[in-house]
Formats: sequence, C-alpha cells, structure tokens
Amino acid sequence: MIDPATAALWPGDGERTEAARRLLLAAVDSFARRGYHATTTRDIATAAGMSPAALYIHYPSKAALLAEISRTGHRVALELVERAEAAGTDPVERMRALAESFTAWHARGHTLGRIINHELHALPEEDFAAVAELRVRIEETVLRIIAAGAAAGLFRVPDQRTAARAVTSLGIDVSRWYTERSSETPEELGRRYGQLVLRMLGAPDGRIGD
Amino acid sequence: MIDPATAALWPGDGERTEAARRLLLAAVDSFARRGYHATTTRDIATAAGMSPAALYIHYPSKAALLAEISRTGHRVALELVERAEAAGTDPVERMRALAESFTAWHARGHTLGRIINHELHALPEEDFAAVAELRVRIEETVLRIIAAGAAAGLFRVPDQRTAARAVTSLGIDVSRWYTERSSETPEELGRRYGQLVLRMLGAPDGRIGD
Repeated sequence: MIDPATAALWPGDGERTEAARRLLLAAVDSFARRGYHATTTRDIATAAGMSPAALYIHYPSKAALLAEISRTGHRVALELVERAEAAGTDPVERMRALAESFTAWHARGHTLGRIINHELHALPEEDFAAVAELRVRIEETVLRIIAAGAAAGLFRVPDQRTAARAVTSLGIDVSRWYTERSSETPEELGRRYGQLVLRMLGAPDGRIGD
Repeated sequence: MIDPATAALWPGDGERTEAARRLLLAAVDSFARRGYHATTTRDIATAAGMSPAALYIHYPSKAALLAEISRTGHRVALELVERAEAAGTDPVERMRALAESFTAWHARGHTLGRIINHELHALPEEDFAAVAELRVRIEETVLRIIAAGAAAGLFRVPDQRTAARAVTSLGIDVSRWYTERSSETPEELGRRYGQLVLRMLGAPDGRIGD
C-alpha cells in the first residue's frame, strides 16, 4: 500500500529505527485508509506487527506519529522547492523546476500528501506551529521566484501572493486526485503542470516549452 | 459553525424536511470537526437535538447522510459551472464566469467543500457512482469551454484534459485552505482566480482584465 517514495522517507538502519520505521509506515497506511481520527494506536501497532505496548516505546501517542509524518513530509517538500530555487538564476527555469518536482512529488507520494495536507488540524498545537512554519517557508520560496521573475519583466502577475498560493495549491491538490490509475506518470504530469504554471504567471510565449 | 451558503442548500419547509435539514447540517458540522469515520450517528443525532432512534426515521445510516450531502453539494457545483457555460457564447467570458463562481463557492462553503471532496471514498458504491458521474459532468463542462476557446483561437492549450483538470483542481482546493480569516473575500479571490485561469489557458493579453 505504501509507495516507494514514502517508504524512502524513513530509511531503516539500526534496530530502534527499524521498529520506528515500521510504525510510521503502518501509521501512514492506517491514516490513509480510515482517516486519522478513526485510527487507534492498536490499529497501527497491529499493522506494524507489534503490540500496543511496543508502540509506546517509540511514540507516546498516535498524535506523535502524525506529527513525525507531517514534519518529515513538509521538510522534504520544502527541500524540493529550495532545490529548485537554487538551480540556476533564471526565474523561468527555477519556477519550471519547482512546479515540475512539486507536482511529481505529490503524485508519487499521494497517500502521504493527503495525510499531511488534510489532517493538519489534528496536529497538537506545538507540532502544528512547526509544520505551519515549514508551509510558510514553502510559499515564501515560491513567492521569491515570482517576485524575481516579475522584477526581471519575465512574469506578469497582478497579485504575487495569490499567484504563489495558486502555484502551491495546484501541486498540493494533485495528491487528492492522483492515483496509480491516472493516465499520466508523475513526471509527465509535472512537465505539463510546469507549462501551465509558467503560462499562469504570464511568462513569455517563447519560454513555455512544448 | 455552518456558513449561510451551506445552510441554504437544504431549505426547511414542512415538519419532516425541517428534521432532515437539522440532521444534514449537524452531519456537515460533525464530519468537518471529527472526520467522517470517527463520527457516530449518535454524535449527529445529539448535535441535531434528537435521539439516535429519531435519526433513523430519516436516514438509515451515517453513510446515507454523507451521500445526501455529497450529492447535493456536487449538484450545486455542477449547476454553477453549467450556468457559467450558458452565460453568453464567448469562451473567455464563460471561463471567467466559471472560474469566478466555482472559486467563490468553494471559499464560501469551504466546510462543505472539504467534506464532499475529501470523503469521497467513504461513500457506498452506488452513491460513489452517482457522485462520480456529477464530477465527470463538471469536468466535461470545463473541457467544452476550453475546447471552444481553443477552436476559436482564444486559448492556447497543448493538453486540454490536463488543463481542465487544473482549472477544477484550483477551485476545489480553495475549500482546503480558505478560512474566514483569509485576507480576501470569496468574491475577490474568485476575481483573481478568474484572471489566473485565463492566463493559464493562454487567453489574449487584452482579455485578461485587471
């Protein structure tokens, strides 16, 4: 049930880590199937082949599991967009790289993407604050590239903040609707969304690509 | 907790209808707070000021409530986009009207929007099929306007189906992130999204508006 991209988030090395890893992947799977609120720690422990008591050695609550899943997912998403920003200096190519990788990641890891984006309000206050901070940094990265493109006369965007919100929203929502039965691979979808995003930001015709 | 737009979906007239209406609104509120799976029929009955036995007079299960909520929500969303298509013959203005009203509706009714879009997989098979059919009709309406605009040389869209998916996705995802604390009113957001969508579809510069 867990895609390789999600499984790779928590590499298993060392005994304790391997148990924690199994619990995290079992939690992703259980939350995806039943929703966070209807999942019990017993469900997760059972799916990981452990007793509830063994679960508590690693995580004090299912909220702690959700928090770790959400933090890791958001940290990886932030790394993706920061890597796109660091790739070169041309705002058009940085935005293309960002939209392509952000979209493909949400398609590939759609199960994880749904949990970290739809169960935000279930996070304990402190964890919510940490994740909200990562979300702000993702959107600020998008906004910086838009602002640089507008300053260079490459993007035409009347309201940069709304445009940044739309770019991230398009990518995030992929995890809601994408399934392995979708007709496009994550990479194909990323390429097409990269073009749609550049068009949306008013990039010059000759720079959209085909 | 229930916004006026959602409350207006089920007008209360007649005794039976008034009780059913209270149950539907209580279900929307409960599903939004706890998620569908963690909500019990007792939670809904209590929130509606009824006994569980009184609930069963109107709905055989919480799945039946979710199905009615989801069908009604999708029917109204379809009416919105069909009304936009029927408003005039110019693809640019039809698409602007569609993106504006679809976006504003998902902002105004974000609680309902989240339920009908994030709890799809909890629907019983037959209800899922009925709702999937409404979703296809929404996307086909968007696609017809895109195709008409492309045929008229007004839109430049390499892949019409992906573009239609992106237009609906942008609107739907508004219900995930929009709150009453958002800085834009639903109408302002609709107007800005209308412009972003026209840009994304490659409408002529002079037709975007400001």
